[in-house]
Amino acid sequence: MILVVTANPALDVTYAVSSLTPGAVHRAASVHRRAGGKGVNVARVLHTLDVPAMTVAACGGGDGALVRADLRTAELPHVLCDLAGCTRRTVTMLAAAEDTVTLVNEPGPEFSPSEWRAVVATVHGLLDHASVLVCAGSLPPGVPSDAYAELIGLAHRHGVTAILDTSGAALSAGIVARPHLVKPNVEELREVTGIDDPLAGARELRLRGAGAVLASLGAAGLLLVAERGAWRARPTHPVRGNTTGAGDAAVAGAALEMAGGRPWPEVLRRAVAVSASAVLGPFAGDIDLDHHRREHSAVTVEEIHAACVDV
Amino acid sequence: MILVVTANPALDVTYAVSSLTPGAVHRAASVHRRAGGKGVNVARVLHTLDVPAMTVAACGGGDGALVRADLRTAELPHVLCDLAGCTRRTVTMLAAAEDTVTLVNEPGPEFSPSEWRAVVATVHGLLDHASVLVCAGSLPPGVPSDAYAELIGLAHRHGVTAILDTSGAALSAGIVARPHLVKPNVEELREVTGIDDPLAGARELRLRGAGAVLASLGAAGLLLVAERGAWRARPTHPVRGNTTGAGDAAVAGAALEMAGGRPWPEVLRRAVAVSASAVLGPFAGDIDLDHHRREHSAVTVEEIHAACVDV
Repeated sequence: MILVVTANPALDVTYAVSSLTPGAVHRAASVHRRAGGKGVNVARVLHTLDVPAMTVAACGGGDGALVRADLRTAELPHVLCDLAGCTRRTVTMLAAAEDTVTLVNEPGPEFSPSEWRAVVATVHGLLDHASVLVCAGSLPPGVPSDAYAELIGLAHRHGVTAILDTSGAALSAGIVARPHLVKPNVEELREVTGIDDPLAGARELRLRGAGAVLASLGAAGLLLVAERGAWRARPTHPVRGNTTGAGDAAVAGAALEMAGGRPWPEVLRRAVAVSASAVLGPFAGDIDLDHHRREHSAVTVEEIHAACVDV
Repeated sequence: MILVVTANPALDVTYAVSSLTPGAVHRAASVHRRAGGKGVNVARVLHTLDVPAMTVAACGGGDGALVRADLRTAELPHVLCDLAGCTRRTVTMLAAAEDTVTLVNEPGPEFSPSEWRAVVATVHGLLDHASVLVCAGSLPPGVPSDAYAELIGLAHRHGVTAILDTSGAALSAGIVARPHLVKPNVEELREVTGIDDPLAGARELRLRGAGAVLASLGAAGLLLVAERGAWRARPTHPVRGNTTGAGDAAVAGAALEMAGGRPWPEVLRRAVAVSASAVLGPFAGDIDLDHHRREHSAVTVEEIHAACVDV
């Protein structure tokens, strides 16, 4: 079972608008609400791929109740700790005329120390049944930046593979605990390392503690840098759609192959195939299964011998 | 007591963002939630002006519970009928860098016939205690476009002054019941009459049944056209701020003076003073009381003898 911690879950609300004009009043043609946050997206993709996954998070308030209800409806196994504060909401505006995706994210409620301890204890209790632990997304206010490092440390003690997908201080502090894989995108890599070249940035993250680095390069595909090599793969052809959640889908693909103990090029191939199929899904966490099957057999993984890569 | 019907109430959520860029991901620096919808804004302004007002609406779901709780917290007297669907939400993005106010409004839940009948019965039961009935805002899905006409008819039978502030089909159908005052803005006036000049448009609305027409001309102030004259007034100086809710504040000002049986120029003076003071309030429904006092004594009302007006 893949255990997915979503430190800062959200109710994702998507409004379809004909056009988005700053300063104007818009009427949403449709409203779509569902449980979100990086970890929930990862778990949703794994569920679609028929891979057992368990979501651990903490929720509260009205939007927390909607998150809980949606996980139940979607049949995503979950353990949700209680939160006194109200779960945050993300607002996505899909503008048809300009083909843009605009997001406004609420910061999320402050966690008390005991609320975060409940999440840690839940993860601890479930690690014996897990093959992979995924720590995904931002840390909420009130949770220390080394919170993921503690969870990764617990994973090591249980012989569980640890994947970290976060950014900024949570990434810098989490990497010290030596996760088996981290998945930054190019901006997150640049922010944390100060290095423009993704290959050099990924190597820097390995020096800081990451076992391997899966860097998403947007439409240019993904890069994987491990101890004994570096590889790159890209979708067989460009896909247009909603790129929100494509990185989360890559994490789901990587987790699936790492749970099977597969070699890095296969981890990368799967990550690219799942990620490309997520762009075709209407909302973050959705994938197009047919596209995934086609991509998985068609994607070529190329070993990198160069000193840097083009993105 | 002023009875305010909010057919389609909302939970108004305001996000402060540094800048709003279509296609980008934004983090809300602050999140402000409160009960809204035109009628609630009118009642909130009346409450601030120490005028007894009663809000009648129907609410449901999580956001309906938040609307109910906020009305209680704000000490706004209310009777809320139950709704099976979930109360809509409006999302306002205040972008500091560009000084823009961008709104996305959810359409709102469908009312069943019995849910709307409960609102009508509640209004009917309260009309004996009312001096003015305000029908404010859009009609929700499932409610016929002549719904306000029925309420205005009930008001006439109880000798209660009726004010209508809505747009489109609800305005066209409501006006037939001869409300004492309607308050369109210039766009609403143009949409319903097809006439560009606000004075001519207002006269057209009188021909269609309105006792008087209070037309808001944005920064150019307000225009009032009644049976025996037409008047115009504007703020003493331009005010910058959040114009959302300025029209609702004008309705509150008009309702207050009409409840006291005051002449039209005084209705107009008050409407301009309250409306200008609303632009200085941080959120729709807020007014700056000091500014209102100063404006009310300083605003000059000018009688119109011309055939048309500049806006």
